[in-house]
Amino acid sequence: MVVREKILEKIIGCFKRHGARGLDTPAFELTETLTEKYEDTFGLMYDLKDQGGELLSLRYDLTVPFARYLAMNKLKKMKRYQVGKVWRRESPALVQGRYREFCQCDFDIAGEFDPMIPDAECLKIMCEILSGLQLGDFLIKVNDRRIVDGIFAVCGVPEDRFRTICSSMDKLDKMSWEDVRHEMVAEKGLAPEVADGIGEYAQCHGGISLIEELSKDPRLSQSQLALQGLGDLKLLFEYLTLFGIAEKISFDLSLARGLDYYTGVIYEAVLLQSPGQAGKEALNVGSVAAGGRYDGLVAQFDPKGHRVPCVGLSIGVERIFCLVEQKMKASGEKVRTTETQVFVATPQQNFLRERLKLIAELWDAGIKAEMLYKNNPKLLTQLHYCEKTDIPLMVIIGEQEQREGVIKLRSVASREEVIINRESLVAEIQKRLS
Amino acid sequence: MVVREKILEKIIGCFKRHGARGLDTPAFELTETLTEKYEDTFGLMYDLKDQGGELLSLRYDLTVPFARYLAMNKLKKMKRYQVGKVWRRESPALVQGRYREFCQCDFDIAGEFDPMIPDAECLKIMCEILSGLQLGDFLIKVNDRRIVDGIFAVCGVPEDRFRTICSSMDKLDKMSWEDVRHEMVAEKGLAPEVADGIGEYAQCHGGISLIEELSKDPRLSQSQLALQGLGDLKLLFEYLTLFGIAEKISFDLSLARGLDYYTGVIYEAVLLQSPGQAGKEALNVGSVAAGGRYDGLVAQFDPKGHRVPCVGLSIGVERIFCLVEQKMKASGEKVRTTETQVFVATPQQNFLRERLKLIAELWDAGIKAEMLYKNNPKLLTQLHYCEKTDIPLMVIIGEQEQREGVIKLRSVASREEVIINRESLVAEIQKRLS
Repeated sequence: MVVREKILEKIIGCFKRHGARGLDTPAFELTETLTEKYEDTFGLMYDLKDQGGELLSLRYDLTVPFARYLAMNKLKKMKRYQVGKVWRRESPALVQGRYREFCQCDFDIAGEFDPMIPDAECLKIMCEILSGLQLGDFLIKVNDRRIVDGIFAVCGVPEDRFRTICSSMDKLDKMSWEDVRHEMVAEKGLAPEVADGIGEYAQCHGGISLIEELSKDPRLSQSQLALQGLGDLKLLFEYLTLFGIAEKISFDLSLARGLDYYTGVIYEAVLLQSPGQAGKEALNVGSVAAGGRYDGLVAQFDPKGHRVPCVGLSIGVERIFCLVEQKMKASGEKVRTTETQVFVATPQQNFLRERLKLIAELWDAGIKAEMLYKNNPKLLTQLHYCEKTDIPLMVIIGEQEQREGVIKLRSVASREEVIINRESLVAEIQKRLS
Repeated sequence: MVVREKILEKIIGCFKRHGARGLDTPAFELTETLTEKYEDTFGLMYDLKDQGGELLSLRYDLTVPFARYLAMNKLKKMKRYQVGKVWRRESPALVQGRYREFCQCDFDIAGEFDPMIPDAECLKIMCEILSGLQLGDFLIKVNDRRIVDGIFAVCGVPEDRFRTICSSMDKLDKMSWEDVRHEMVAEKGLAPEVADGIGEYAQCHGGISLIEELSKDPRLSQSQLALQGLGDLKLLFEYLTLFGIAEKISFDLSLARGLDYYTGVIYEAVLLQSPGQAGKEALNVGSVAAGGRYDGLVAQFDPKGHRVPCVGLSIGVERIFCLVEQKMKASGEKVRTTETQVFVATPQQNFLRERLKLIAELWDAGIKAEMLYKNNPKLLTQLHYCEKTDIPLMVIIGEQEQREGVIKLRSVASREEVIINRESLVAEIQKRLS
C-alpha cells in the first residue's frame, strides 16, 4: 500500500500539473450503459443480480462512465482525471499483474478543439509519468483507427466485420502474425488473401517517413479515412517534436486497441527491456498505459445525440506496482509501512497512565506516535518494536524521570540518549524531527 | 472532489499519526462471508449475478472484509486503516448524505492486549478527527454490548431474541421510545412489561457516576456480563480522562449499534447543533462516526476458530462532506478545483508552436501549467480563462517578445506585467510561486 500510494501520488501529481479536475463515479452503471461498448469483451462484465431495481453492472473501465457523466450533465468540455477500481471477468488464470479487480488512472480531455493539441498533451503526460516512475526505457506505439479501418477497407474486409477483425489485430502484441491470421481466416471467416493484405500493412512501423510513405501508397491512399488519419498523425508528430518526446513514439500499424469506441488516434505504452536485464528473467507485463480518441461515445448517451469529442489515456497501476515491487526486491530496498516518528516507552511497572498522558500530548501536537497496548510491557519488547518498525525516536519515562520532571529521549539508530525537561518534550521532538 | 480530498487527507493523516498501516481489499466478497453478519440488514446487500463462478456480493462495510483478511492470512495483530467504497441497497428515498454507494474510513486494532487501551485510542482518534474537521461541537455516545445484553437478560428478553431487539433499540436515535417500544411489542412479540423494563434503562445517560450507580443496581447487577461491561467502561473513562477527552464522551444506555458482530464497547459520534444554529434549518445527518469491539468475528473465518480480538471505528465521509459543503456555501467560501499555477498565452496569431515549446518546459520543471487548445485563441478569452479558474500567473509570448528573446510575465490578480529573459523563465516563475 505504501508503494502503491507513492505511485498514485506521482500519477495524480502529473494529472494536476496538466490542470485536470478530479472526478468520481459509482462502481456500477446501468447495464445498458455498458453493453455494446466493448466488442468481444462484453461477456467479461460483472453483472449485479436483479434484486428488483435497475439492472446494473460493475464498470469495465473509467472511459464509458466519464462519457455517460458528460452527457448526463450536458458538459461540452472538461479536463478530468479519475482514479478508481474497474472490474473484468478475466479467466481465473493469473497473468502477472492482471487481476479481475484493478485500479485505473485516467486522464481525459473532452471538448471541441483544434486538431491534435489535446492528443499531443495526452502522449506528453504518458511520457512524464513513465519517466517519473523510473520503470526503465519505454516506447509509445501510435496508430489511428481511421488508418486501421482504411487498411481493412482497401484490403477488402466487409464493413460489418471491421470491429471483430480489429479485435483480432489487437492481439498482435501477444500473438504472432501467423496466429492472428489464423484467427482471422479460420475463426472469423476472412478470405486468406484479405488477411495477407492486412498482414503486409500490420507489420510496418516507423516515424514521420513511414507516414509520408503511406500517404503516397497507391492502395491505402484510396481510403479518404486513412488519409485523414495520416494527416493528423503528421501534425501530431510535429507537436510531439516540440514537446521533445518524438523519439519515444513509434507509428505502429499493428496497434489496433481492443475497445470499440475509439475513432481517431490510438496509443499504447510498452516497457522495453534494457540490455542489462536481457539475460535475466523476461518481464512480460504487457502495456502499462494506453488510450486514444473517442469522438462518438458521448453522443451515444445524449438523447439528442450531441457530440463531445474526447481524447484520453488510462494507466494500469497494478502492472506498474508489480514492476516497482520486483525492482525493490532485487535492490533489497526496504520500505517502512508506517510513518511513526516517536515511540513512548517505559522501563518500569505501573507507568501506563503516564504513557497515556504523554502520548496524547504528542498526538495533539501532530506527532506520529505509538506505544504498546500493555499495562506493563518489557523494555526489550519495546526496543525491539522500534527497531523492527524503524521508529527513529523513543521517549522513555520511568520512576527517576518522573521524580525529576524530565524525560529520556533516545535515538533508536545511534542509541544515544539525552535528558530533557518534561515541559519541553514536544518542542524538543519537533526540533529533532524537522 | 477537492473538498473530499482535503477531508480524506485529514482523516488518513490522523490514522497514520496513530501508526496504522494501509490496507485494500476487493469490492466484492464471497456472499457466504457476508451473510449472517448484519442482522436485519442482510436483505440490503448487493449480490452479483451468478455468472458461473463463485457467488459474490459487494461489501457492506470494511469491518467484515478486514476480519476475513486477518483470518485468511493468520494475522494475530494488526493496526490498519482502510478507505474505500461500501454498498448498501437502501430504500431509494434519499436521506441527506445517505447513498447506496458511499465511502468509509476505517481504523481498527486487532490483537490480544490489555483491556481498554486500544478502545480508548479509537475514541481519541474520533475526537481528533472530528475536532480537526471543525464540524462544530460533537458528542460520542458510549455503551457496551454486554450491558445491552445484560439489560435484556434481567428484563426477561429470551436469549434468541437479543439481536433483533437490539436492532430495534438501535433506532432510538431516529425514533421515539414509544415507536421503538411499539416495534418491540407489536412487531417482535415482546411482552409489554419486558419492553417497559428495557425502556427504563434505555433512557439513562451520564458519566462515571452512572456507571457506578448501575454497578450497584440490584436488578442489573444480577448479570455478570453487564458487570463486566460496566467494569471495563469505568477503566475506559479513566483512560479517556488521561487523554483529555472525557467531557466529549457520554455513557448512553440507548446506544445499541445495529451490527451483529459487536461484543464489547460500542460508540457513536453525533454532531451537536450549536445555539447559534438552533434557529436555522435543523441539520439531521445522523451519526458521523461509529464503532466498537468485535472479539468474535475473526474466529468465524478461521477454520480452527482462533480468536483475534478487534476494536475499531468507521467514519462516513459523505455526511461530513455534506456538512462541509453547506458550511462553505453559507460562508461564501470558494474552492479552486484545479491547481494550475501558470497559463501560457499569446496575443498574436501563429504562436501555437511557441506556446507548445514553452508549456513543455514548464511541465518538465514540475510547474502546473495550462494553455488553450486552439491554434489562434483570442487574448481576451485567455485572460478570462485565467480569471475564471484563478490561475495566478500568465506567461505571454508574442512577436515582440520572440524578437527580443524575452517573455512577458503577468500577475492575473494585480495585472502587473514584467519582462524577463526567455532563458530564465522557469527560474523566475519558481521564484514567484515559492
